[in-house]
Amino acid sequence: MDNNNIMNTADFDVLHEECGVFGAYDFDGEDVASTIYYGLFALQHRGQESCGIAVSDTNGPKGKVMSYKDMGLVNEVFNPENLEKLKGNIGVGHVRYSTAGSSVRENAQPLVLNYVKGTLGMAHNGNLLNAVELREELSYTGAIFQTTIDSEVIAYLIARERLKVGTVEEAVKNAMLKIKGAYSLVVMSPRKLIGARDPFGFKPLCIGKRDNTYFLSSETCALDTVGAEFVRDVLPGEVVTITSKGIESDTSLCQKNNARCIFEYIYFARPDSKIDGMGVYESRINAGRILAKTHPVDADLVVGVPESGNPAALGFSLESGIPYGNAFIKNNYVGRTFIKPKQAQRESSVKVKLNVLKEAVAGKRVVMIDDSIVRGTTSARIVSLLKNSGAKEVHVRISSPPFKHPCYFGTDIPSEDQLIATGKTVDEICKIIGADSLGYLEVDRLSEMICGGTGFCDACFTGNYPMDPPTRDIRGEMG
Amino acid sequence: MDNNNIMNTADFDVLHEECGVFGAYDFDGEDVASTIYYGLFALQHRGQESCGIAVSDTNGPKGKVMSYKDMGLVNEVFNPENLEKLKGNIGVGHVRYSTAGSSVRENAQPLVLNYVKGTLGMAHNGNLLNAVELREELSYTGAIFQTTIDSEVIAYLIARERLKVGTVEEAVKNAMLKIKGAYSLVVMSPRKLIGARDPFGFKPLCIGKRDNTYFLSSETCALDTVGAEFVRDVLPGEVVTITSKGIESDTSLCQKNNARCIFEYIYFARPDSKIDGMGVYESRINAGRILAKTHPVDADLVVGVPESGNPAALGFSLESGIPYGNAFIKNNYVGRTFIKPKQAQRESSVKVKLNVLKEAVAGKRVVMIDDSIVRGTTSARIVSLLKNSGAKEVHVRISSPPFKHPCYFGTDIPSEDQLIATGKTVDEICKIIGADSLGYLEVDRLSEMICGGTGFCDACFTGNYPMDPPTRDIRGEMG
Amino acid sequence: MDNNNIMNTADFDVLHEECGVFGAYDFDGEDVASTIYYGLFALQHRGQESCGIAVSDTNGPKGKVMSYKDMGLVNEVFNPENLEKLKGNIGVGHVRYSTAGSSVRENAQPLVLNYVKGTLGMAHNGNLLNAVELREELSYTGAIFQTTIDSEVIAYLIARERLKVGTVEEAVKNAMLKIKGAYSLVVMSPRKLIGARDPFGFKPLCIGKRDNTYFLSSETCALDTVGAEFVRDVLPGEVVTITSKGIESDTSLCQKNNARCIFEYIYFARPDSKIDGMGVYESRINAGRILAKTHPVDADLVVGVPESGNPAALGFSLESGIPYGNAFIKNNYVGRTFIKPKQAQRESSVKVKLNVLKEAVAGKRVVMIDDSIVRGTTSARIVSLLKNSGAKEVHVRISSPPFKHPCYFGTDIPSEDQLIATGKTVDEICKIIGADSLGYLEVDRLSEMICGGTGFCDACFTGNYPMDPPTRDIRGEMG
Amino acid sequence: MDNNNIMNTADFDVLHEECGVFGAYDFDGEDVASTIYYGLFALQHRGQESCGIAVSDTNGPKGKVMSYKDMGLVNEVFNPENLEKLKGNIGVGHVRYSTAGSSVRENAQPLVLNYVKGTLGMAHNGNLLNAVELREELSYTGAIFQTTIDSEVIAYLIARERLKVGTVEEAVKNAMLKIKGAYSLVVMSPRKLIGARDPFGFKPLCIGKRDNTYFLSSETCALDTVGAEFVRDVLPGEVVTITSKGIESDTSLCQKNNARCIFEYIYFARPDSKIDGMGVYESRINAGRILAKTHPVDADLVVGVPESGNPAALGFSLESGIPYGNAFIKNNYVGRTFIKPKQAQRESSVKVKLNVLKEAVAGKRVVMIDDSIVRGTTSARIVSLLKNSGAKEVHVRISSPPFKHPCYFGTDIPSEDQLIATGKTVDEICKIIGADSLGYLEVDRLSEMICGGTGFCDACFTGNYPMDPPTRDIRGEMG
Repeated sequence: MDNNNIMNTADFDVLHEECGVFGAYDFDGEDVASTIYYGLFALQHRGQESCGIAVSDTNGPKGKVMSYKDMGLVNEVFNPENLEKLKGNIGVGHVRYSTAGSSVRENAQPLVLNYVKGTLGMAHNGNLLNAVELREELSYTGAIFQTTIDSEVIAYLIARERLKVGTVEEAVKNAMLKIKGAYSLVVMSPRKLIGARDPFGFKPLCIGKRDNTYFLSSETCALDTVGAEFVRDVLPGEVVTITSKGIESDTSLCQKNNARCIFEYIYFARPDSKIDGMGVYESRINAGRILAKTHPVDADLVVGVPESGNPAALGFSLESGIPYGNAFIKNNYVGRTFIKPKQAQRESSVKVKLNVLKEAVAGKRVVMIDDSIVRGTTSARIVSLLKNSGAKEVHVRISSPPFKHPCYFGTDIPSEDQLIATGKTVDEICKIIGADSLGYLEVDRLSEMICGGTGFCDACFTGNYPMDPPTRDIRGEMG
Repeated sequence: MDNNNIMNTADFDVLHEECGVFGAYDFDGEDVASTIYYGLFALQHRGQESCGIAVSDTNGPKGKVMSYKDMGLVNEVFNPENLEKLKGNIGVGHVRYSTAGSSVRENAQPLVLNYVKGTLGMAHNGNLLNAVELREELSYTGAIFQTTIDSEVIAYLIARERLKVGTVEEAVKNAMLKIKGAYSLVVMSPRKLIGARDPFGFKPLCIGKRDNTYFLSSETCALDTVGAEFVRDVLPGEVVTITSKGIESDTSLCQKNNARCIFEYIYFARPDSKIDGMGVYESRINAGRILAKTHPVDADLVVGVPESGNPAALGFSLESGIPYGNAFIKNNYVGRTFIKPKQAQRESSVKVKLNVLKEAVAGKRVVMIDDSIVRGTTSARIVSLLKNSGAKEVHVRISSPPFKHPCYFGTDIPSEDQLIATGKTVDEICKIIGADSLGYLEVDRLSEMICGGTGFCDACFTGNYPMDPPTRDIRGEMG
Repeated sequence: MDNNNIMNTADFDVLHEECGVFGAYDFDGEDVASTIYYGLFALQHRGQESCGIAVSDTNGPKGKVMSYKDMGLVNEVFNPENLEKLKGNIGVGHVRYSTAGSSVRENAQPLVLNYVKGTLGMAHNGNLLNAVELREELSYTGAIFQTTIDSEVIAYLIARERLKVGTVEEAVKNAMLKIKGAYSLVVMSPRKLIGARDPFGFKPLCIGKRDNTYFLSSETCALDTVGAEFVRDVLPGEVVTITSKGIESDTSLCQKNNARCIFEYIYFARPDSKIDGMGVYESRINAGRILAKTHPVDADLVVGVPESGNPAALGFSLESGIPYGNAFIKNNYVGRTFIKPKQAQRESSVKVKLNVLKEAVAGKRVVMIDDSIVRGTTSARIVSLLKNSGAKEVHVRISSPPFKHPCYFGTDIPSEDQLIATGKTVDEICKIIGADSLGYLEVDRLSEMICGGTGFCDACFTGNYPMDPPTRDIRGEMG
Repeated sequence: MDNNNIMNTADFDVLHEECGVFGAYDFDGEDVASTIYYGLFALQHRGQESCGIAVSDTNGPKGKVMSYKDMGLVNEVFNPENLEKLKGNIGVGHVRYSTAGSSVRENAQPLVLNYVKGTLGMAHNGNLLNAVELREELSYTGAIFQTTIDSEVIAYLIARERLKVGTVEEAVKNAMLKIKGAYSLVVMSPRKLIGARDPFGFKPLCIGKRDNTYFLSSETCALDTVGAEFVRDVLPGEVVTITSKGIESDTSLCQKNNARCIFEYIYFARPDSKIDGMGVYESRINAGRILAKTHPVDADLVVGVPESGNPAALGFSLESGIPYGNAFIKNNYVGRTFIKPKQAQRESSVKVKLNVLKEAVAGKRVVMIDDSIVRGTTSARIVSLLKNSGAKEVHVRISSPPFKHPCYFGTDIPSEDQLIATGKTVDEICKIIGADSLGYLEVDRLSEMICGGTGFCDACFTGNYPMDPPTRDIRGEMG
């Protein structure tokens, strides 16, 4: 059970991705749970609250699924004993972060269920816009809901479509016609591993291969970890079906109009991943380079706020010629169960987590690069840490545009009234965080950042939602 | 996770009840979780594998249910922290034993769900005969199943009926028309606590009251524990609805033909409970008295196999005049996680659990009373313990008839080929267990045991099932 | 860590033994940890707070000891993994109850240490009277203490004596010359298993044998559990040394004047144990018989307060002819972590733990037998439970004399001002507990209870201490 | 208990520091446990196996110490409940890594004990050379040892000296005259906090202050974390005594000949610490600069092996003008309980922990900076990872000299036959790890690295031990 005194990661003033998915199918019949375990490790940054693995034996009695899931990190939930018991050569895994209200074990994924045609295991990354309506609609035909996760809604739709069509992949596709929003899905039926991505392609999903084992993964970094080769990305709108006959693809729902989440490049994805052909690390280097050109400054040192600010800082340095350095030491031992200092205590969470290398910054004009400013409180504290350590000037450069609008597609962001950029000028923000200057990456440079790529969603910066946002804020209800 | 070396209670050669249910509704608005906790303690003998509590605040926002459930004893699952978080003045609780296959956390009860009219919490004791058919039928209208427990089937039926009728209690009644088998149900809707018992009345269910709090409980002993007064039993086939307006009763499904489980009186229920007006302790005393009359023997001492054999032993002594005594010391510290001795070890599970008071039995002709013989192995070991301790003769008397037929109504019994009584005469069994004589309670004396009561199910002894048994053995699939 | 809301066993108004010891030496070289585990199970009633096992391989490198100990029941502390790691054919085990102040993991036994001659493992049952003085004395020669247990003092003395004499058993004997009080010791050196008992013989200790394995145990019941034969009791004042050459005995400290704890027979020991040749069960039957003669009463039913009151109740019934019966159902699932009801709650700890069989007692004149009355609160509640259940009269008979004086030898009893018998007449106590009559076993009948045995300590009843009690109350400091 | 399948940090081919110490004394009487908790976080890199905190109330009854310690990270061992119970305004804390043999809970620190003058709490970083002799000597005067840690030996010496002298600080100093080796000590007596450092000053220790609270800490980074100001380093050989009257210093054991561990600067200490006036980060930058001058190479990119190689890589880049970049992504979620891949599995521990940024290195000539090569296996794998990712050349530069000799002062290093540098030329090592060139920092440049500092121990590189090494290898026995 949670303890109120325990600080969870949400206390740090950062954005949260909500999920990572991973699937594996070994056609040689070997167990895949252990490999999925390592795959989930590589995706842990996408969700630290709960995790789970479900497996099935495609050569055994049809539809027996074994699963284990719980609150906690991959590291904490799985041990040699429970992993050993997950016997099966096909499986799906999931890591999850959730908004506070639905942080209960019942909501951990993968979702495992019996339906008319046997069993399904399902892992989902994203957020549906019409989940409330669909739940209501399904309720009126007698559905009951035991969780508050969107996956359950999708599962119902697949189950019902499956009554009408001949294959589970067709059912998946038909279900996709009813759901609106962001979703990358990995679905395991007794003999098939299916991957699907919403037609806008909000969330990433890719295919990998190692000998006779196929993989589906939110990010390519997990393929590297398990020693698999990257085959290709699943296309926005595509349904891929992996069976003993190979990979089948149904692209009938693909559309021209894509909306890949630009924040995957800026912050969410691991730098060693490639998403839809574009390297994440490279895009962050680019962001730094662009900032150096658009918001130049005379300074002695460029530093990144660890870890995510470092690549952009390097890019800024390469472009500007100002030396790159480290200004911060991050304490990696501050885990999920870290006890948060109380107000009255002299210690602060930021100081426990970050310390400044005084000798590196003292007397210098410092360019400090971060990926975003959310509430502004953390930025203010870090600027203050630098100044207290003797930095003569602190010039803040942010490798994304000001964050002004809610995301309805699976990113957990505070409400608009908590976002520092809402209704404030850059100058005002600069003053609030105590910086000597402040520069954001401009929205019209985002495409340049990803080497001219298009078809991304920048609604959190622009308010230009790729599909109509819900009339009421449904975030938090859906989890 | 389980450990194969750990002996669970199933290793002892005894029968298992599968569930206990408890519900509470405090019209003064006080939290009931703590009281349910104590109620579940009193019902722990009905299920030691998992337990759970779900509560709701009838004065709060409609339909917010908080629940906590896990594998383990009431003692192990709940602590002051998690109990404290269960805020609400209406609630249901459950203790569960299950057959091996479905011993997973997902199957712990109460089942909590959202449906068309809000939330339901449900706890169920019993076993449905047509669950497979109903699941199939429901699947063909798009239902998905996340557990393997019957409660989920019942919940679906209630949810679907609720679309057609005006109240949840009507929906419960209509659902009852579709399900066949044994079930005592406690259902919590946002503003109502509902109890229902199948028309045969296989499983017990009673109503209690303490000030402004009403209770539903599998057994009266739990009412005693929480300081409540017994109000009455729920009738077989009755649906009772407890609201702020009082108790409403719908008896339209009641029928003449009842089939109360006779084994509740013989073994399952706690001796301090009364079921349908008949005291359990008294019925066991009666069983001993009957045995003394029907299977008399010249002996020096009457002893019971603890704990369950003691009352019948006392009855045998009272009737026969042979002194009652204790022959065994039972080690109550042997809990769920006891490490089972390996074959090669000199220690045996029986010896760790039971020791003989040598001085009490040495040189004596002993009447040993037990409630039943299942596989016979434990009985053989206990007879042997007595003889090795110097008992001159051991006369075994069993306070129930030979157990020959499977139960489809919620009792976990081995398959027929493992039952010692199947296809063997009493003399053969006597030899196998090494006794000097053996006597069972005759079937035609069961009514006398419960003071002339009628309307009970004795199918496990007679094969006379009150409803057609399933054509294939569905035990184990259902859990 | 403890939780204040959790009721520990101390909350029940009973006396507590403080320890049980068990040792094993397998001359065939097999591991003994598993056997010690089962032996500790049988001794669990002597201490439920912490437990531990230490083992050594007499054929391996000299003096490598492996141990594991922790707070909790045998059941909770050991699992197949940690038990498996305890490799060695000689070992000692311990179960412990302690007074509140010293309930910390550091005080768990066995104590394992390195000293001038290698390693020692030591388990101790009892309490020293001069521990404070010895600690002080040892301190002045540079000793440091890492626990608050007496065993550490004894270990120092053995270590220091060992510098002067040729064998560890001699060192043990010499140490015994310095310590005053109650102690049964099991000591493991690299090649020897040593048992010792203080010259008064306060605490029991016996020897057992199974094939080529020798045992030392607080009680014979543990020998039965592991399938060993009882060899003999260790004599008061004797030091036995078990080596590959057999059992050697040094009786030079034996004295005529013994003081076996009479409470072992009345309450502490398991009924299936024999202590110094006298069966515990038999002595309790005797106590009941004596009460029937000395405090007869006209009644309909004799009942025992479970579990400990049952044998005496049986004895009372046998002697008086009044039928024996069960009046109470005890909930055996109430474990160490049971959450204690708060004052405001309607539930009480007694009611959760005990329920009355109303039908058994209603309208009857009941003789209720218990082993002792400590504070009186529990007795009062139980009498009240019986009366509320319809008992017409409740006559309380106690199978021991009134408990009036503190014990300095290892029994945890409340201070005199909390003992109901201090300064009150039997009539006054009878009124306080609400009984219709009250009778205690007279002090001068104690010898009759144990079949004419002599040489026991009855100081808690008489104040006649076998050795001068400490001038200040040192209980609690010693742990 | 440990699980053999679980990889512990020792599996990574790196060196281990053995301890970190932290002490606090709040003269305003506030509890210090929480502050020590945050201090230990900052020192976690010095020991990840066990940790503990002991506190005492200087205004309460003299000498009551409360402590809690266990195996695990600070994060895992402490929770709000157990931290809350540690009441006291003076305290010591400890983090520990140990060699395999003594990895048991009993060896966790601080050591808490009673001795002739009350209580002591003690935390120790280092390793004694004459611990075996001292143990033997102490044994011959009747000492018993319950742990295998050096602190117990030191405690005995202090306790015995205290009998002769008037203050505990004098006793500490006198004990220091008897012990040989490396030790930084924090000792808490009922009214004093004492810090001491061996005359060679092998291990760091510094003093901090925050309002009315004084601190002793292994590293300055922990002072930063708790918001304290650095006061000064404790001098090699100095004993500082902090009481309500201020800081007293006894420098009578100080000597000219110092031997600060050079590896603190190279690898052990956190980069944001200053040790004896020299910044750790700066020394690592310097090491990189020196390598660029002494082992220049024509290349496109300089990268560090995370985390420890990064500062030297930056220094190399600054000096050489070759661009600095990131080549690796380290998975920070790989914790203590990570399940190690089996031999047969395709995943490797290195790959799970490190991934290469292919786009950053492909086609490039890479300079890879690491702090040391121990066995060489990890270096070989990382070089191979870079080459497989397309690096055209990999030039390895090591920011320390070849590591050839055992350390007897508290660093856990493999035996000489496992050290790759023993008996091999640099060219041979280069071939083994598969690099295109290899350069080590020369021994005669170490002083330059720390800005001309002298008085350090470089025995692991040179074999020039500041005191005679033990005649037999006592590492592992001492723990």
